[in-house]
Parts: sequence; structure tokens; C-alpha cells
Amino acid sequence: MTDAMTPENISVLEALHSTPARRYLSTDPIPDEIIWELLDAAVRGPSGGNSQLWAWIVLRDPEKKRQIAQWYREGWQAVYGPRREKELNGDATGRRTYLSAEHLAEHLEDAPVWIIPALLGPGESKNPRLGSSIYGAVQQLMLAARAYGIGATLTTLYSGHDKETCELLGLPEKSITMALVPLGYPVKGRWAQPKRRPLEEVVHWDAYGANRPRSAEQ
Amino acid sequence: MTDAMTPENISVLEALHSTPARRYLSTDPIPDEIIWELLDAAVRGPSGGNSQLWAWIVLRDPEKKRQIAQWYREGWQAVYGPRREKELNGDATGRRTYLSAEHLAEHLEDAPVWIIPALLGPGESKNPRLGSSIYGAVQQLMLAARAYGIGATLTTLYSGHDKETCELLGLPEKSITMALVPLGYPVKGRWAQPKRRPLEEVVHWDAYGANRPRSAEQ
Repeated sequence: MTDAMTPENISVLEALHSTPARRYLSTDPIPDEIIWELLDAAVRGPSGGNSQLWAWIVLRDPEKKRQIAQWYREGWQAVYGPRREKELNGDATGRRTYLSAEHLAEHLEDAPVWIIPALLGPGESKNPRLGSSIYGAVQQLMLAARAYGIGATLTTLYSGHDKETCELLGLPEKSITMALVPLGYPVKGRWAQPKRRPLEEVVHWDAYGANRPRSAEQ
Repeated sequence: MTDAMTPENISVLEALHSTPARRYLSTDPIPDEIIWELLDAAVRGPSGGNSQLWAWIVLRDPEKKRQIAQWYREGWQAVYGPRREKELNGDATGRRTYLSAEHLAEHLEDAPVWIIPALLGPGESKNPRLGSSIYGAVQQLMLAARAYGIGATLTTLYSGHDKETCELLGLPEKSITMALVPLGYPVKGRWAQPKRRPLEEVVHWDAYGANRPRSAEQ
């Protein structure tokens, strides 16, 4: 990256294949203008019925970050604490991922900017597909960040304290926060392709368990 | 587009700003190799704890598409049917969007390929953030499709019949389908920037309702 204000000119396919979660972030500030550009790209993502009943909180206030980071660490401990020994004794990738996630939990408030996308209105929604109107936009945010050399991670571990988070951020009644995305310039790791299970194992043709047809019969 | 097999070399920022829902699709087939490329980009999206407990169904079977399309139209009628008159008498953008969504509902099974991403295990989940482990990947799918000149829409209107859909697709118990993404080469419309509310209305700095600070104080 030659200049923080100028996005890297990478192709969309290259970006899709090289935007892993970045969890080691510097405390260097991110210019307001860039935050704005990231959000301008985010909101072009899908919103059911184009309703856009969303709010995007840019959080830099140290006190509020500190409070939410405590809630995050509570969630982290509850979910990942018990797995520590197992993960650290597992394979290299699992160990590396665990340690980076632990680092993020311990240093969450050091990320210079957090984005907290919220939905307005659903309140106590029990709809498992509620996120279809926000997480696509969150992915757009992270891909735009990639273009500016800014790392991000989609996290939800703070959400056991969603109500308190809504209150702390002054969100209207019946709002729900959907994620916490810490942003920062990466200090470790690289823009490599996320490792995933072989595609053959997760893609099914016309029915679960069915392989790719020998001849296309469209 | 000069050659269907060669992706367009557009930058990631350009793609993020020019990938609207495309609802007028041709029946022309999509080569298997391209479907594979789209899914290979999709699975690089976020999966909580990198668990990847997902299945990606490529649906081309005409009978199964016809059945699910009926369920989709049921959902469409229930949600959008009552709004028809109001939307058609509204502003030009609203009218155009309504008519395109109605067209999609009426012609859903004509799209040559559907992608149905599912999560394995959550069953009757009431977690409103469940989609954080799939919709980012779905957005990656749609952006990769954009590069190949293929249009897509994220839809969930079939989901009143999720259980029957799971059964029809042979998904394991406790699976849940998260979306239906019809894919096809667009025959109408263009790769224009999705219209959204002014960013000032949806972005809040440190607290809901707060404007951008005059001086950055990071």
C-alpha cells in the first residue's frame, strides 16, 4: 500500500479469495474519509424489500469500547475458554486461529474503529434468517476495507449483552445489534486465501450427498 | 462480456457498488465450471469458528424447482400481495422494484440454476444472528457471479416451507435452509449502483443519532 487514502486496485475475484479475518491490528487511526467510503460500499449490500431499517454505529469512544470489550471477553470465555487446551494441542492451523482469536479478545478495544451494525425494529426477533438483511452488507464493508488495506473480523461474542449494548449506544427500543466489526491496519498475518474444507464435501448437486453430474443436463 | 468463461476484470470497489439484485434472468444454462468458481469464492466468506457446518445445494432439477417456486409464490403473495396497489401507485423506483420482484416470483423456476445454502445442525434455532455464518459467504457468491456477468438475488420468501424444502433436498435432520439464490444471465436492467438512503441518515458516530465529529479525535 503506497498511500492510505488510495484503495488498492485489486479485482473482485482476487479480493473474494484473499480476505481472511484479521485479528492482529495496529492502534493507528483510520481517517474519517475512509470509514465513510467503507460504509458507502456496505450499504449497497442486500436489504430485504430495500427497507434499510438499519443503523451503522462507528464506535471510537474508549469508554464504550472498554465496556463492550468486557462483555465480549465474557462471551469469549464461555464459548472458547473451555476449548483452549484442546485447540492448542491440535493442528497448526487450529492453534494459530485460536491464538489469534484470543489475541483479539484480549485487545479488542485497541482496534481504532469498531463498526456495529444494528437492525431497527425486530426487537426480540427469533427469526434465524433475520441477518439476511445485514450480513451481506457487513461482508461488503469487510471487502471494501480489504481494498484500503484495513483488516476486519465479523464477531458476535459480545451479544449475550445485546440489550446493554443497545442502551450504551442509545439505539431506539426494539433495536438489535447484529455484529461487532473491529477495524484496523494489520500488524501480523497476510491477505491469504482462507483455508476451507474441500468444495466437493460441501457442494451438492440437486440433492444433499449427490456429486456433480457427469454431463450437464440443464 | 466477451466470453462467458472469462471473468470481467473489475475492481472490488467497483463490484461492491454495482451489484444490485437482478431479477430478469435468461434461461440460458450456466456452465458447471463457472458454478464451481462461484462456490469456491463463496466458501471463503466468514464461518463462525471456521466450523463450516454448511451445505451448498446447486439446484437445477425442474421438478424440485417447480415445487419450491410454488412455496415461494405463497410467501410472495402473503407478504407482497397486499402491497401491490400501493407500490404500483408509488414512485417510479418503488414501482420498478415491485414489478421486477413480481416478475421473479412468477418466473423463479426459469432461472437455470439456484443455489440454496443451508446450515447443518441448528434445527429449530431461534438465534437472530444465526446468519452471521452464511450470509457473508452468500454475498461473496453474488459478487463472484457479478464478475462472470451472472445476476443473482438473495431471497427467503420460500422459507415458510423450510421443513419441506429440507426434505425435498434430502438434507440431514436439524438442517435449515438459509436462502434461495436464483442465478442467470440478466436480460433486462443493468449493473448500476443500488439506490440507498443518504449515508448521513444511517451512520452514527459513537451513539445513535450523533453526527460525524467535526474533528477526528481518535
